[in-house]
Amino acid sequence: MTLFPAEATQREIARELYAHARDLPLISPHGHVDPALLANDESFPDPARLFVVPDHYVTRMLASQGIPPARLGVPSVDGSEVETDGRAIWRLLASNWHLFRGTPSRLWTEKVFAEVFGVEKRLSAETADEIYDELSARLAEPAYRPRALFTRFNIEVLATTESPIDDLSVHAKLAADGWGGPGGRVITTFRPDNLVDMEWAGWAGRVATLGELTGRDVGTYPGFLAALRARREVFVAAGATSSDHGHPTAVTLNLSDADAAVLYRKGLGGAADAKDAEAFRAHMLVEFARMSLDDGLVMQLHPGSVRNHNRALHARHGRDVGGDIPSATEYVQALRPLLDAHGDDPRLRIVLYTLDETAFTRELAPLAGGYPALYLGAPWWFLDSPEGLRRFRETVTESAGFYNTAGFVDDTRAFCSIPARHDVARRVDAGFLARLVAEGRLPLDEAAETIADLAYHLPKKVFRLDGSA
Amino acid sequence: MTLFPAEATQREIARELYAHARDLPLISPHGHVDPALLANDESFPDPARLFVVPDHYVTRMLASQGIPPARLGVPSVDGSEVETDGRAIWRLLASNWHLFRGTPSRLWTEKVFAEVFGVEKRLSAETADEIYDELSARLAEPAYRPRALFTRFNIEVLATTESPIDDLSVHAKLAADGWGGPGGRVITTFRPDNLVDMEWAGWAGRVATLGELTGRDVGTYPGFLAALRARREVFVAAGATSSDHGHPTAVTLNLSDADAAVLYRKGLGGAADAKDAEAFRAHMLVEFARMSLDDGLVMQLHPGSVRNHNRALHARHGRDVGGDIPSATEYVQALRPLLDAHGDDPRLRIVLYTLDETAFTRELAPLAGGYPALYLGAPWWFLDSPEGLRRFRETVTESAGFYNTAGFVDDTRAFCSIPARHDVARRVDAGFLARLVAEGRLPLDEAAETIADLAYHLPKKVFRLDGSA
Amino acid sequence: MTLFPAEATQREIARELYAHARDLPLISPHGHVDPALLANDESFPDPARLFVVPDHYVTRMLASQGIPPARLGVPSVDGSEVETDGRAIWRLLASNWHLFRGTPSRLWTEKVFAEVFGVEKRLSAETADEIYDELSARLAEPAYRPRALFTRFNIEVLATTESPIDDLSVHAKLAADGWGGPGGRVITTFRPDNLVDMEWAGWAGRVATLGELTGRDVGTYPGFLAALRARREVFVAAGATSSDHGHPTAVTLNLSDADAAVLYRKGLGGAADAKDAEAFRAHMLVEFARMSLDDGLVMQLHPGSVRNHNRALHARHGRDVGGDIPSATEYVQALRPLLDAHGDDPRLRIVLYTLDETAFTRELAPLAGGYPALYLGAPWWFLDSPEGLRRFRETVTESAGFYNTAGFVDDTRAFCSIPARHDVARRVDAGFLARLVAEGRLPLDEAAETIADLAYHLPKKVFRLDGSA
Repeated sequence: MTLFPAEATQREIARELYAHARDLPLISPHGHVDPALLANDESFPDPARLFVVPDHYVTRMLASQGIPPARLGVPSVDGSEVETDGRAIWRLLASNWHLFRGTPSRLWTEKVFAEVFGVEKRLSAETADEIYDELSARLAEPAYRPRALFTRFNIEVLATTESPIDDLSVHAKLAADGWGGPGGRVITTFRPDNLVDMEWAGWAGRVATLGELTGRDVGTYPGFLAALRARREVFVAAGATSSDHGHPTAVTLNLSDADAAVLYRKGLGGAADAKDAEAFRAHMLVEFARMSLDDGLVMQLHPGSVRNHNRALHARHGRDVGGDIPSATEYVQALRPLLDAHGDDPRLRIVLYTLDETAFTRELAPLAGGYPALYLGAPWWFLDSPEGLRRFRETVTESAGFYNTAGFVDDTRAFCSIPARHDVARRVDAGFLARLVAEGRLPLDEAAETIADLAYHLPKKVFRLDGSA
Repeated sequence: MTLFPAEATQREIARELYAHARDLPLISPHGHVDPALLANDESFPDPARLFVVPDHYVTRMLASQGIPPARLGVPSVDGSEVETDGRAIWRLLASNWHLFRGTPSRLWTEKVFAEVFGVEKRLSAETADEIYDELSARLAEPAYRPRALFTRFNIEVLATTESPIDDLSVHAKLAADGWGGPGGRVITTFRPDNLVDMEWAGWAGRVATLGELTGRDVGTYPGFLAALRARREVFVAAGATSSDHGHPTAVTLNLSDADAAVLYRKGLGGAADAKDAEAFRAHMLVEFARMSLDDGLVMQLHPGSVRNHNRALHARHGRDVGGDIPSATEYVQALRPLLDAHGDDPRLRIVLYTLDETAFTRELAPLAGGYPALYLGAPWWFLDSPEGLRRFRETVTESAGFYNTAGFVDDTRAFCSIPARHDVARRVDAGFLARLVAEGRLPLDEAAETIADLAYHLPKKVFRLDGSA
Repeated sequence: MTLFPAEATQREIARELYAHARDLPLISPHGHVDPALLANDESFPDPARLFVVPDHYVTRMLASQGIPPARLGVPSVDGSEVETDGRAIWRLLASNWHLFRGTPSRLWTEKVFAEVFGVEKRLSAETADEIYDELSARLAEPAYRPRALFTRFNIEVLATTESPIDDLSVHAKLAADGWGGPGGRVITTFRPDNLVDMEWAGWAGRVATLGELTGRDVGTYPGFLAALRARREVFVAAGATSSDHGHPTAVTLNLSDADAAVLYRKGLGGAADAKDAEAFRAHMLVEFARMSLDDGLVMQLHPGSVRNHNRALHARHGRDVGGDIPSATEYVQALRPLLDAHGDDPRLRIVLYTLDETAFTRELAPLAGGYPALYLGAPWWFLDSPEGLRRFRETVTESAGFYNTAGFVDDTRAFCSIPARHDVARRVDAGFLARLVAEGRLPLDEAAETIADLAYHLPKKVFRLDGSA
């Protein structure tokens, strides 16, 4: 896999540019790796549990061709039986490997096989057992334990994602081991979605937990805000430099304290309807922006996913198993209350993501190219792929430039795929920059500086991982 | 015309891949050829009546530059006069041939001239008569009669499209001649739009005809469903393997029998409003899905066309003459009722089309890559072109792979253009796959297998033309 | 900068095609150059006031990285102080020049430096003063005064944009000098937005001015229409061949005279709400179409910009300083009233622009490829860039061809950048056509004819600059 343009002039330039980025450390400011993995540093289980079971990119593709997630070992929440034999799961993957032709999952997986595990053989029904055995043998070796891989992967910093009511004990262990804490290798991210979304089952209970954890009176809206502020302090002390907000839409709202308090009371009283819940979520984004002005956390906004679209899948296997679907997302009117309030304040940093590519030239690049507070996050989820990354640069750069983008974010649960994902992004950026150079749109030396900025310096700076305030 | 990438590496690979698809038989599971053409097997009329009059791609482009369809011989429905001299029509086309630069109509037409008729001369005001005469001479020969061309075109199966109240007598003649029936060369498709769209003038009358044809009491909703089921049986017996549904939107609705019956009665009583009509159409899609579970017909959904947008054109020349315009189409919420009910059932096959490309990465590829029942149909109508076909693969493959797509569908009224259209699709797919190979994203042998699947094996399988249930 | 495809075959063809367009005169039928510039023909002020202060592409990018427009000399409307030292402003630009990597602003500026001023050095903090001094020296020379540059730029005709209540005295001076008037080098465009938008502060006052200027009774709706017609006559006499309409949406409405009069009265009485204002704007587009049938002015529609999105910026610096943001724009239903009334009339010419690229394949190309009155305007504003221009051809050509597009429109305030902008468009079109030639989709000789049409003959004809009616 080179991913470089096939055309010789650009290919040579891309190769040269890529050399400026290839060996730079990985900055992973947003992702969903379980921090316990690195805190406990135990060997990974079998290959199926590493590559198939937890990766919904993989299980959803197999499901789309009629292989139920239960046969792939995806844990059930309804008590129904699921496959537990790793080798059986692996064989299902192998004999359906053709389904992944042309997908990033295939690219990432083959890169991990080759570059992490030294397995160059192509996966197929015939090679399934042999590869399974080879991978299993490697996984048993100490060099394949998480911390060893972390070091070998040249990851400088990895952020995980926790709810404000997470006690951060796992991160405390990491800090105690010299792996966590401010400026550490593994840090947390403040993700308050399940405390601001009244429609999420169990909301009031989680708010109560927040009160217990902080000793604040969360029976009132000011107490709720104070409790969140208190947890942000704890997150900052654990190394967090950003918050993350995954809302159905990008809608923001700047309510008066009194109006916000009314919604909050309705929510606690079980009287909030969908409109109230939307308004509360929207308003809380502006509250979090205000908190960011105080504590410096970079705000990440991830709107536009219809969660649990596949209801049968959700009923059987729960959340985050491949049943979410993107939808059209409006930003220009939606963000206006937030931008009116704080969009011109350069102390604030908001990193915007989208699952709706149509917003890139029409809304997001013009917004990021106009407001000091805004940065564009890397293509995310369904768009985190060679074509998606290429289109991102092609549609964003002319209005926003490179320096209103925030660098690559792997956003993954799959620890072993992190270097592969960053490498794909670096190669695609090299190809894009090579085209600019070949067409006489950018001098080579500036392109070389740019690719290093995109790969390393820019995400480090935008996510405040360089120690700056 | 090679349509292959100009760059030498990819061009060589594309050429090699194309060789794996070039001579495969044509599977044409969806189109609008008049079956009488093949049943009667008479010579085509003059070149204007073959290439201009019935092809609204051609007449609309000329109309857009001020040449009224009447001067192009398009039949009128208001009694106004239209040109009848084929040669005069032909000269108008020829002297405006520059309007078609860069359009697929030009590609297809020139391919047909060259490859079907052996005419290599470029069309222009100067060559108009000469080409007209050459084409006319060929059309008079027996080798240019429809069945001879069908065989020469290497079409394995061609599906036409009929309303449930069509008596299928033309298909019966084809069957009697050894050309039709289940597994035959020419089959029908069940297209019930004019029976489920209460807003389509004459609806109640067509429902009455349906009752007569089936002997069911269509005065009640259960009787209406029974009558449709009866016609599906007849269509299946005539070889149909799919149904087709061309709705204004993708909205589906899963009503109770009682609620559906209320809408049906309102419709028959002339009391249904636009909202009722939309609800009834939406609900009937779920009913048809249920029928498909029983009889195996593959469902095709073609939403998003605003029919008869050009009202003056519609008033003078009727339907299907180039006056329809696409519009934005939402799928994620719209399809939810249908997918909640049957989306995870691998026995069901729904082939989704769009005229709104923005849905490809945002909605359609994620949906097709997640639900067992869903397949993505080929780029359709305004998108059935080199650029449209290329963007389809670029935007769909990474989330849905190749095997959640349903293969190429020519969707044409223009019989002679069928091989040209399939050839364009095969060449564009070869170019796309060549890029994947050249960038190290897919091994050559898998790309070769894939192109044969896309061109032949996959449409045959997805549309159940391989005899499978 | 070649902007041609890097691949050798296409590059050679592009170079050859470009040669057919390179030296053709510039047709600039739509833009925002201040006509006083050419009427007075005074030397340009310093480089900062030429390249930075008035160019909101430049100031917004710098603002997005925290450099307030006041530090860039952008005039304030609230009395706050702004930088006045040209050299200080210039140094800010120079030391942030990396922000413009990959943007069209950088391309245009470097082209102007090199081709207009002979400055080949790269801008940076180090070279800032030297380049400032060189540019300043050039600007003091007579050869760098506006009329001299106009001639050197080979501009055949430049249209500026004026409100109906502009007295056109500047254009009268141009005419007196042999530079303006019908068929002249500098002409005006009729832009009535501030007279049809009741929501624009001061509307009633401007309507009163219109009454005074024309001697019509603008207290009544018929009088208002008569006054507008009178001003159109004056504009036509000053050389105008087109009108321009920048509305928030593309919505049109064909009201009865009585209903329109009601809205008008409400507006004058201060009783119109947002819905009334929208309806009045929408209806006036149909009125202007009717006027165009009489006086031949080509109608330009520029919908889809949310004006003054950045409220803080607007409060401090006023309109047109980079605070506008595009938004999603619907055309198919919105234009229907206008198209129903006059869309099939080939005497009418409507040039449609968009800031929403998603409309190109889905709505705009099908509309322009079907209605005689419609032409597609060039990619505009945020899309007026190499990638935007390329995507325009890729998404529009297959349904609308080349001849339903209206040629390039530079739309600029930045006089010196006009040749650079046209040259970029010619190069990108050469590259697109070269691909068609290389892929066997268009013969070379027709591509050569096409590029000359796109660059020169087509805009001249569509905008009625060839003296035709």
